[in-house]
Amino acid sequence: VERATETSIDRTSSRELLVDLADVPRGRLGTALENALRAAIRDGRLRAGSRLPSTRALAADLSVSRGVVVKTYEQLAAEGYLTTAPGSAARVPALQVAGDGRARPATAPADRWEVDFRPGTPSLGSLPRADWERAVRRGFASLTDAELGYGDPRGLPRLREALADYLGRVRGAVVDPAHVVVVNGFAQGLAVAARLLGELGFDRVGVEDPGSVQTSEMLADNGIDLAPVAVDGCGLDVSAVGDLRAVLITPAHQFPTGVVLAPERRRQLVEWADRVDGLVIEDDYDAEYRYDHHPVGVVQGIAPHRVLLGGTTSKTLAPGIRIGWLAAPPALAEAAARHKRQIDLMSPVLEQAAFAEFLSSGQYERHVRRTRTRYRRRRDLLMSLLADALPDAAVEGGAAGLHLLLSTPGVTDEAAVVRHAAGHGVRVAGVGSYQRSSGRWPAGFVLGYGHLTDGALRRGVTVLGDAVRAARAG
Amino acid sequence: VERATETSIDRTSSRELLVDLADVPRGRLGTALENALRAAIRDGRLRAGSRLPSTRALAADLSVSRGVVVKTYEQLAAEGYLTTAPGSAARVPALQVAGDGRARPATAPADRWEVDFRPGTPSLGSLPRADWERAVRRGFASLTDAELGYGDPRGLPRLREALADYLGRVRGAVVDPAHVVVVNGFAQGLAVAARLLGELGFDRVGVEDPGSVQTSEMLADNGIDLAPVAVDGCGLDVSAVGDLRAVLITPAHQFPTGVVLAPERRRQLVEWADRVDGLVIEDDYDAEYRYDHHPVGVVQGIAPHRVLLGGTTSKTLAPGIRIGWLAAPPALAEAAARHKRQIDLMSPVLEQAAFAEFLSSGQYERHVRRTRTRYRRRRDLLMSLLADALPDAAVEGGAAGLHLLLSTPGVTDEAAVVRHAAGHGVRVAGVGSYQRSSGRWPAGFVLGYGHLTDGALRRGVTVLGDAVRAARAG
Repeated sequence: VERATETSIDRTSSRELLVDLADVPRGRLGTALENALRAAIRDGRLRAGSRLPSTRALAADLSVSRGVVVKTYEQLAAEGYLTTAPGSAARVPALQVAGDGRARPATAPADRWEVDFRPGTPSLGSLPRADWERAVRRGFASLTDAELGYGDPRGLPRLREALADYLGRVRGAVVDPAHVVVVNGFAQGLAVAARLLGELGFDRVGVEDPGSVQTSEMLADNGIDLAPVAVDGCGLDVSAVGDLRAVLITPAHQFPTGVVLAPERRRQLVEWADRVDGLVIEDDYDAEYRYDHHPVGVVQGIAPHRVLLGGTTSKTLAPGIRIGWLAAPPALAEAAARHKRQIDLMSPVLEQAAFAEFLSSGQYERHVRRTRTRYRRRRDLLMSLLADALPDAAVEGGAAGLHLLLSTPGVTDEAAVVRHAAGHGVRVAGVGSYQRSSGRWPAGFVLGYGHLTDGALRRGVTVLGDAVRAARAG
Repeated sequence: VERATETSIDRTSSRELLVDLADVPRGRLGTALENALRAAIRDGRLRAGSRLPSTRALAADLSVSRGVVVKTYEQLAAEGYLTTAPGSAARVPALQVAGDGRARPATAPADRWEVDFRPGTPSLGSLPRADWERAVRRGFASLTDAELGYGDPRGLPRLREALADYLGRVRGAVVDPAHVVVVNGFAQGLAVAARLLGELGFDRVGVEDPGSVQTSEMLADNGIDLAPVAVDGCGLDVSAVGDLRAVLITPAHQFPTGVVLAPERRRQLVEWADRVDGLVIEDDYDAEYRYDHHPVGVVQGIAPHRVLLGGTTSKTLAPGIRIGWLAAPPALAEAAARHKRQIDLMSPVLEQAAFAEFLSSGQYERHVRRTRTRYRRRRDLLMSLLADALPDAAVEGGAAGLHLLLSTPGVTDEAAVVRHAAGHGVRVAGVGSYQRSSGRWPAGFVLGYGHLTDGALRRGVTVLGDAVRAARAG
């Protein structure tokens, strides 16, 4: 097995590069680090062939969680600024500097993983193309000339009505179509939310720890400071929210632990929000996929005046479709629509009309049911493979969604497992890479399975089993 | 003829409402005023039936241009917070307050204009629906499963390539596909530009005066202070740009005057930008429609390193399609892509694939040619009607675009003309409503014609002719 060698090109010059980062607020460090590294690569301070510090060493240098550095390296690798061969240090590749002075990746980044357990990706082949195309055709035909013009920033009324109906029926939400704002996926919903939070003076927002790096960074990129709040086996520790006035949570299926926010915690959350006159941003990202019983309803349903509920079709249809929604507390609906308008005027009407058609014809729910069956089968296979390969490991959070958490008692170094797996072409992330503060969550690994074939699941679990056993032995 | 009575409900309480606005930066006053009025209407400080101050009186109270107040009233009327019957003061209608405490307009705002000369709207019936539907179908079929997933924030490579080719061939731009960022219309392009300007430290940006209220406000809503720069018969007065380091301009067909930026001014502009290490944001919004000769090329073509070029399909296809683009200077391309990602992750792939298909098959250019013929015919009719009705008025800026400027010597009170026309169901805006500083531009009216039928043009010109004659007599 190849192992990563913990060397860096030149620790001193790497530190010099990072001096610029000293005054950057913590929530923005990821972005600032990306920029600093890109600039250093472009202007030659980091030369072709240079090895970068290990994610662990750099995280220690910067006093940030390792997840921030991992994500930064991944981003730069995806852009071609770094190459990250399994089991080796990240390197600066030879870049073609074009006539205009801009560096370009010498090669397009390739998907080099044999098995990629990355969470958050649905089975892209499961988009019902023929049905969606029909909905697009019908939706387009339904659009009046006037609807092809400049319209309501909240979106087409018929889509907002269909969404309010769907969210009420399927997610237990209490939504007036007037308070829905159609957005291009939840990412844009977060950009809108961040502007709204800024307007309310809630510049510091609680985020789950462990939690989604992507959603947190989206808030941070839009001017919000992040305050990590611990998650335990009942979900967000509401007593630790302190004097904050806003939190971003994933109550139906906490990302990445899969914990469902306990009823008592839900009550505490609403009490806190009422007490501080605060706001809960509820990211209801994959709760349609619940395998044991009816999906757990949204917190919004018990406190519509306190919750900005966000959802997306990125997990049920495909991320490239770019349809999401916000259901705002009545008092904030107008401001939410205004902020949507200020960054994007309005969403494309073609997708809106198609999705309205898809929802109101019942096709959307049929599609969710069909894919739920498919995902449950994948989950069942993954759980049975894990039970065979690692009988003393525990699976958590597998009752819903498209990923689960494998808890591995006896593993002290998640990174060793990640490296071992990477050395065999398998990409997996430790729960530690989702933690902002010093982790309280026990060692484990986040396994996205929605997009993986049976063969990939078998191969992935075999490698992961070996990696965990090696780490326990080592 | 009904005339607006220049009364206000209660000048003192209207002033009280506006105390909150005292500390608002000028660039943000429009938004702040909207919010203050909405809040006052919702919470009953402005009661049903109340008359609002005239736009002139309120503009004087606030020391803002009247255009800001006109736009605010229009927005609130569109949302149902105000009713604005032709020739009368704006009034607060009876609002239904729903159980959730949110006021709702009692009736949906209706399009009450017989003829609306509002510029910026294409003929929505001219979208070639069958061709576009075919492009959507082909585009969708061309998308791989991976392209339906999370992708490059800049957009699909094949669309960026097709755009770079098109912009080079048709607009004289020098564009590398790597530096293109697909956005959802130029409005989102401006939100991206505003973030980029903020990052560069260019917090104060020159805008054309007279100029587009909508694009200026989009910058202001994204944290940019606006500095009006005079426009004369040669376009932007570059010598008046002073110590600014960024400007937003419409050189091919200045909005709303229709002036083409003169060659000498273009050179001065680039010299200025090089001298101050600055940035030109070029809004190339309707230049495909040029009737006398080949469209005037973009400034970007002579200074690709200094110009952030933005364009849109909102004028050529339809605003609801939501496809626009930025072509960034090489050094800023990466930052532009990052800001796009931070507010919207990426644009929907379906429209992108469809537009790539539409562009590369030549259908887009054929469509532009076809509609150009249609718009030229409308322009010719409008000009001949105007020549008959107002032989001593001059038409300017009619060589391109979807609107022209009617210059009316002898008219001192544009507002009287606007009111007279409104009293007869015709909506028209004076050039003064596009001015931020005390206007230097002679009296005139902005006539959008792209969306108007022959009958509407005839009726509109008849009313406008009467209104201008009445104002000269009065």
